[in-house]
Amino acid sequence: MTRPLTLIVGAGAGLSAALARAFAARGDAVALAARDTDKLADIADDTGASRHSCDAADPAQVAALFAALGTAPRTVVYNPSARVRGPITEVDAEEVRHALEVTAFGAFLVGQAAARAMLAAPARDGIHGTILFTGASAGVKGFPQSASFAMGKFAQRGLAQSMARELHPKGIHVAWINIDGRIRNPGRIEAADAPDSMLDPAAIAQSYLALVDQPRSAWSEELSLRPWVETF
Amino acid sequence: MTRPLTLIVGAGAGLSAALARAFAARGDAVALAARDTDKLADIADDTGASRHSCDAADPAQVAALFAALGTAPRTVVYNPSARVRGPITEVDAEEVRHALEVTAFGAFLVGQAAARAMLAAPARDGIHGTILFTGASAGVKGFPQSASFAMGKFAQRGLAQSMARELHPKGIHVAWINIDGRIRNPGRIEAADAPDSMLDPAAIAQSYLALVDQPRSAWSEELSLRPWVETF
Amino acid sequence: MTRPLTLIVGAGAGLSAALARAFAARGDAVALAARDTDKLADIADDTGASRHSCDAADPAQVAALFAALGTAPRTVVYNPSARVRGPITEVDAEEVRHALEVTAFGAFLVGQAAARAMLAAPARDGIHGTILFTGASAGVKGFPQSASFAMGKFAQRGLAQSMARELHPKGIHVAWINIDGRIRNPGRIEAADAPDSMLDPAAIAQSYLALVDQPRSAWSEELSLRPWVETF
Amino acid sequence: MTRPLTLIVGAGAGLSAALARAFAARGDAVALAARDTDKLADIADDTGASRHSCDAADPAQVAALFAALGTAPRTVVYNPSARVRGPITEVDAEEVRHALEVTAFGAFLVGQAAARAMLAAPARDGIHGTILFTGASAGVKGFPQSASFAMGKFAQRGLAQSMARELHPKGIHVAWINIDGRIRNPGRIEAADAPDSMLDPAAIAQSYLALVDQPRSAWSEELSLRPWVETF
Repeated sequence: MTRPLTLIVGAGAGLSAALARAFAARGDAVALAARDTDKLADIADDTGASRHSCDAADPAQVAALFAALGTAPRTVVYNPSARVRGPITEVDAEEVRHALEVTAFGAFLVGQAAARAMLAAPARDGIHGTILFTGASAGVKGFPQSASFAMGKFAQRGLAQSMARELHPKGIHVAWINIDGRIRNPGRIEAADAPDSMLDPAAIAQSYLALVDQPRSAWSEELSLRPWVETF
Repeated sequence: MTRPLTLIVGAGAGLSAALARAFAARGDAVALAARDTDKLADIADDTGASRHSCDAADPAQVAALFAALGTAPRTVVYNPSARVRGPITEVDAEEVRHALEVTAFGAFLVGQAAARAMLAAPARDGIHGTILFTGASAGVKGFPQSASFAMGKFAQRGLAQSMARELHPKGIHVAWINIDGRIRNPGRIEAADAPDSMLDPAAIAQSYLALVDQPRSAWSEELSLRPWVETF
Repeated sequence: MTRPLTLIVGAGAGLSAALARAFAARGDAVALAARDTDKLADIADDTGASRHSCDAADPAQVAALFAALGTAPRTVVYNPSARVRGPITEVDAEEVRHALEVTAFGAFLVGQAAARAMLAAPARDGIHGTILFTGASAGVKGFPQSASFAMGKFAQRGLAQSMARELHPKGIHVAWINIDGRIRNPGRIEAADAPDSMLDPAAIAQSYLALVDQPRSAWSEELSLRPWVETF
Repeated sequence: MTRPLTLIVGAGAGLSAALARAFAARGDAVALAARDTDKLADIADDTGASRHSCDAADPAQVAALFAALGTAPRTVVYNPSARVRGPITEVDAEEVRHALEVTAFGAFLVGQAAARAMLAAPARDGIHGTILFTGASAGVKGFPQSASFAMGKFAQRGLAQSMARELHPKGIHVAWINIDGRIRNPGRIEAADAPDSMLDPAAIAQSYLALVDQPRSAWSEELSLRPWVETF
């Protein structure tokens, strides 16, 4: 039996690296996709993952990515997002359009390609695969001076809901995860007197794996993850 | 004192006509914008409204529209939306992109232009103006086989929330209205044994006016409107 | 034709007085119910309202109240609430029980009695009546050190949703209104440099009347009202 | 080191038995509390759990239960609920009051006692314990002819949110789980052509354990669990 394949789109040094390690540690083959694959060298070395250059908002590049995988992924995680901060009266329209394309349209493209590939592959335990979208609290509450992020993350959450209602009965598990706080990474460590006030990427990965492991009689379609001291 | 100006974007024969009549009846000047202005002739005749050709998803055309108005609108209503129905595995990506641009990016462009114009104009009763987005239940719940509409309406709702939190303290009232049901129009009348099972456009317009008339000490930022017999 | 009757339960000097004045000003007969009716003397004088002593959490007293009205109310507003503030580990259980009974169980009792009376009375414009529950943001978001209020207002909101889904198709309009901010009253006026930072009771009443006036083809079941400068 | 203690309140043959087995299987001591402890004999035999007779809506009995445990529980699960079905105009008020007390007030009593005990006990990995409330979709959406269940489950969800916001920063993890579907149990098995259309209690228990195992940098405060074919 071949190893299940996990595809992580929007891979970087923080969450994506932790996800790659967690999925590799349980025996999955891992594929990493990002616009810039140079920064993925270390993770690829650690996990044996393949690297793929891909602009997730470009339909042709997303199609090429899935063709290059050679096999249907068992799990797909969509991480990319973009935003423009500033007063609504001042933000640049083309930057807003771009942010919406990366956060929402790219999520659609990857979600669509994942659904196509998974449905064509055999099910295990009645499940064809799992598609996870990495969201943010901006998808639940629109914050001021951040219209583009509110639009993108709300849209992504709407996409995930629509896909969950459509694909759950077809055996594909879809969930949107609200990462409600800052993620700890090598360049951003919380203060010594505020332990665990940032989300540990390994702790996030643990909950992603818990979603993947849910039997189909008890699936979740949304999950919030937030540090114990984070207000909400 | 000049009459207040109400701009209705995405004007057609149903809701927009009722809004035009309601705002005109209370003494507002009305401007109607749509890609196809021919269909607006009757409403314009009835209400004395000006007509403006505008693709709301095009930044240059939106800028030209507001320049052509000559004065800051007191109320702006954004109605356009587009959608692609079908299984997520089959819908055309470019049509999805277009739907997202009309429903969400266009809402941003018009909302941004409206905010700029209103903030530059004098306040009355402490209020610079009102911006209303016409939503749908797809912005609250993502339905199957309708990913593009879920994305667009969720995004629009996120935009409205972000703008409300940013602009309310500046004196611009922003609200998103969930039209949860079918709108009665000349080509679509409900069955005789199901009276008022479709939303009467004049009844919708009445609630839009009620939002515009709210004093700033008690503003609403969302509203659902639904026929008495509609399940939800 | 007899004047329509509006019953306001939980009447006091702030919101309830404004509601009594607004409904009386449009021609309704008004009935005011409260545990302490002495404080209602001024409002009753102003509006010609009848006064009724009633503990809304007591089934027998609620039954007696509706019997005393003599006619089915056209509109019923439920205002009472109670709360206990403090750390969850310290609040007194009996006070929590009492708060839950006033805020939620009393709302049920009055809502049930109102539905019974309205359904037995003739409809006008297809509508048997309107039942409005005065909520708070605590019904949407549970705040720390305020478990009893979170429980009571959440329960009240669940009650209103259940009643709306059940009674809308029977011609009774039910809505829950989130009063998200402090209400201005004679003993509590906002600072001069923070105009309209508290909800004006007359502004609230205006939106309550707008709900009552909605035709049945376009009903709202929830509404938030909040000052322009209130964060949310 | 003593084994951690898990207290399951409202224990019966379905979910509670599965929870007892899952917690026992990982090495926890288990205490089962219910009004009728006779039905717990088999589970107690299987898991070595202690049995405690307790009416969760009675403050004195809840106090006695925690006193009888002898040690602070590390995990507490609250399962009891009660409801009255029927038209709002017909349901019996005292039965509604009782349902609200079991579903909501009992949840408060047990949550309060759990918080007191946990805060007084030492933390492990910075965590004093986990409190889980078993909810239902009635806590998110009020259904017709089910006002008492809507009130109870909404109230319970508001309680959980209030406790999460208050207790997370003190090191107690609180979550409300929406069990959105029917639970498979010995007396209720789904049809052969509808596999996994009811929630498997062991699958639910797996997700409860995943919540308990979340590190404090990435806690969830709500979770929905629903069969793959369940509409929502």
